[in-house]
Amino acid sequence: MITSMANSKVKRIVQLQEKSRARAKENVFIAEGIKMFEEAPADRILELYIEEKLYESVKNEKLFPKIKECLDKGIPVETVTEEVFEKMSDTRSPQGILCVLERFSYDREQIVQDAVERRDAKGRRPLFLLLEDIQDPGNLGTMIRTAEGAGADGIFMTRKTVDIYNPKTIRSTMGSLYRVPFAYADDFEEIIGLLRRKNIRVYAAHLKGTQYYHEIDYKEGSAFLIGNEGNGLKEETAGMADCYLKIPMEGQLESLNAAVAAALLMYQSRI
Amino acid sequence: MITSMANSKVKRIVQLQEKSRARAKENVFIAEGIKMFEEAPADRILELYIEEKLYESVKNEKLFPKIKECLDKGIPVETVTEEVFEKMSDTRSPQGILCVLERFSYDREQIVQDAVERRDAKGRRPLFLLLEDIQDPGNLGTMIRTAEGAGADGIFMTRKTVDIYNPKTIRSTMGSLYRVPFAYADDFEEIIGLLRRKNIRVYAAHLKGTQYYHEIDYKEGSAFLIGNEGNGLKEETAGMADCYLKIPMEGQLESLNAAVAAALLMYQSRI
Repeated sequence: MITSMANSKVKRIVQLQEKSRARAKENVFIAEGIKMFEEAPADRILELYIEEKLYESVKNEKLFPKIKECLDKGIPVETVTEEVFEKMSDTRSPQGILCVLERFSYDREQIVQDAVERRDAKGRRPLFLLLEDIQDPGNLGTMIRTAEGAGADGIFMTRKTVDIYNPKTIRSTMGSLYRVPFAYADDFEEIIGLLRRKNIRVYAAHLKGTQYYHEIDYKEGSAFLIGNEGNGLKEETAGMADCYLKIPMEGQLESLNAAVAAALLMYQSRI
Repeated sequence: MITSMANSKVKRIVQLQEKSRARAKENVFIAEGIKMFEEAPADRILELYIEEKLYESVKNEKLFPKIKECLDKGIPVETVTEEVFEKMSDTRSPQGILCVLERFSYDREQIVQDAVERRDAKGRRPLFLLLEDIQDPGNLGTMIRTAEGAGADGIFMTRKTVDIYNPKTIRSTMGSLYRVPFAYADDFEEIIGLLRRKNIRVYAAHLKGTQYYHEIDYKEGSAFLIGNEGNGLKEETAGMADCYLKIPMEGQLESLNAAVAAALLMYQSRI
């Protein structure tokens, strides 16, 4: 059991929680909390840390089979004191369990190809999000979560988007991070090229839009461009869209929250 | 100009930023940032604090007429050093301006009555949100923002809902806080009674729902019950609804983010 805050493993976890670069260097991320552990793909778990009292209490509970699976696989499982867990945790009310996981690595072309194959197999229309420079980790996580709910096939992000492995992003996904394919792109030209070749239309919410989002027939697949929270889409990026659309807005409001706009568009294309 | 962090006015602002009780006791709230100041109802501004360099730079800019309006009205306007402003600010990148405002006070019956009158005058259907114990300030702010966009007539909240005057909530509203009527309720029975008498239907997203949200004809007015982020709606509260509905959900997801669900429902009832 780890009892000291000065333990090198504890210090490393704190670094991984706080520093995007430290996570990238090790090609890992941290998932914290009972739900995130339960839903974690077992073949990606590299290390597991459990607060001692939780460990004792779950020995006969539903969480234990997964812990046992980790032990059986030879994954290092460490118990730590409550004080040490608090130090390692990124949350105010730690749940007493966190794991270090290997990062996902999706191939951009494969993501698009899989979407097309699902269309052929199940008649579902491909659905993508293209995120430009989203800065708020909670917004990004919420978009991933909503993307799973709406049945999206993948998310593409500019490199200036906030780190998808930020602890707050991960929490906000409620486990969807494990299930929604995603990839970064230097710019969207290549991605949009890939999408177009599969007859997937690219939409941007834009002041120049003449059609309301709920009046469009999303009969082919759809990809929605969502811009940065403060600045919206860059003109250059918006220019890549096949179609501008608008979301009706009352009052004096200039725009909706990016995650809210993404939700309205993704769900509308599906219902 | 205030130059000392130990100045009693500075200490008070810090208290008002951090403590819900301090704000309630004085019946005030703090709005921070250029946009929030620009859109603030001038008759509610009680005090204004501006970082000295911003004050100098805006003397000929578009922000100045509003500052001058405050000066002309005899509202105390204080300049402060950059260091002092940082201390007073709730944000990481302070914009150099904040104001103390008198709180809003809406009458519950009047909110409902106004909605009905708007229906008669403009043919718009009444639209309300009923929020139960929402805990995340950003979620609450986003719901207020979306409510304005969707043209909602008001928001009712349980008393266990996070403080609507929390600085993060206020920021997330993007100014909608000034324009969307809201009121707290000890419980929803009285509110729902008020709504029913005006033929406004109360909907709850619920596992027992048999109709999809996009298949419902929202021809009368609508009020949507939205539950706490972690626990969803209490059974007792859900039981007050006239109609259960469901939002389609793919993947392994159990629920959508509360602000996302609220957005889908509000917009669907309007489009």
